[in-house]
Amino acid sequence: MSLANYFSIYHKLTEAEQQLLSRVVIEKKAEKGTILHTGMKDCIGLLVIKSGQIRAHITSNEGREITIYRLFDHDICLLSASCILNSIQFDITISVEKDAEFFVIPVGTFKQLMEQSLVVSNYMNQVMGSRLSEVMWLIEQVMWKSFDKRLAHFLVEESALEGTNVLKITHEQIASHMGSAREVVTRMLKYFQTEELVKLSRGTIEIVDEDGLRDLNE
Amino acid sequence: MSLANYFSIYHKLTEAEQQLLSRVVIEKKAEKGTILHTGMKDCIGLLVIKSGQIRAHITSNEGREITIYRLFDHDICLLSASCILNSIQFDITISVEKDAEFFVIPVGTFKQLMEQSLVVSNYMNQVMGSRLSEVMWLIEQVMWKSFDKRLAHFLVEESALEGTNVLKITHEQIASHMGSAREVVTRMLKYFQTEELVKLSRGTIEIVDEDGLRDLNE
Repeated sequence: MSLANYFSIYHKLTEAEQQLLSRVVIEKKAEKGTILHTGMKDCIGLLVIKSGQIRAHITSNEGREITIYRLFDHDICLLSASCILNSIQFDITISVEKDAEFFVIPVGTFKQLMEQSLVVSNYMNQVMGSRLSEVMWLIEQVMWKSFDKRLAHFLVEESALEGTNVLKITHEQIASHMGSAREVVTRMLKYFQTEELVKLSRGTIEIVDEDGLRDLNE
Repeated sequence: MSLANYFSIYHKLTEAEQQLLSRVVIEKKAEKGTILHTGMKDCIGLLVIKSGQIRAHITSNEGREITIYRLFDHDICLLSASCILNSIQFDITISVEKDAEFFVIPVGTFKQLMEQSLVVSNYMNQVMGSRLSEVMWLIEQVMWKSFDKRLAHFLVEESALEGTNVLKITHEQIASHMGSAREVVTRMLKYFQTEELVKLSRGTIEIVDEDGLRDLNE
């Protein structure tokens, strides 16, 4: 399966542009935990995800983290090429959450395509709009939603992503996704357990009442 | 002073595009308090600000507000034309904070230019990058910064914007900018007063130690 199968605008590009991409694109694999991009200086290029799961997060001075968004197959990772947009002025870390395969379009080529192709430039506007929407959603969550609702939403989403009701995730990891502290997560999970929404065991969280969690989040 | 003086990419457009813009652009004035855009359905077009001050904010179900960003002369208001980017999926309110004059480029024309002009499309990517950066900055603030630091930053910024150390702003208004409650603002301002950073009077907040406020925010 080549880039053409994953890069949604590929077939709208000119033949010359397609040939250019085929010449320069690199296929890569990265294991869970690999850091692909950190800070503003890194600029590996545009990533087109083939498989796996990629996470973008920010970190406080004290080392606390919050997940900004996640990327899956067919998604584009634009911020790993943020150096070509000098209006992007923030530090973000992009890491591999599940073993991933992806294409890398080198920065120079991507920049050239942005500057010469309306298809590429317009597509980037759509991708930027999506990222902006995700970040706005997050602001609404952290500003207006109480922690129990946010945690309920996170558990339901995680269960859908993993395709199982038994989540193998530590309280520390949940805290890192939500920008919270481990103790806060543990306390709320214990409350969820007394409400018979989840069942906690060593290293796992079993969702026993998904509808209950959904109701909580409404 | 025409659109050419305020729309930074005007001189990079083709003559035909410049003529098109001149034919369709509308000049408008709006008084402080006017709502220019609300929700996702509104789509008045691209605004190019000539003078005044425009504010973009979101509102919780309970009516609490937080300022997402502000726009000044020469800035572009993209979200008032968000309907042309279907990846933008969030409600935002755009209102006039200080009596404003601006140009409106109608949605149809703007869409046409985005689709035919690399200059316009690339510029929009830069603007989107700026907005994304502002929203990311806000997330970092609300996630990691304590309220005293955020309030100190707000007061210093407001003082710079207004060109005075005596701010005519209510505690309620500050709360609406910061996504907080009036009582929280009042309590912190009183603390700032005991620290001799500000002096409170009916309807005004005088900044007496700007350096102190800046130090607090570091």
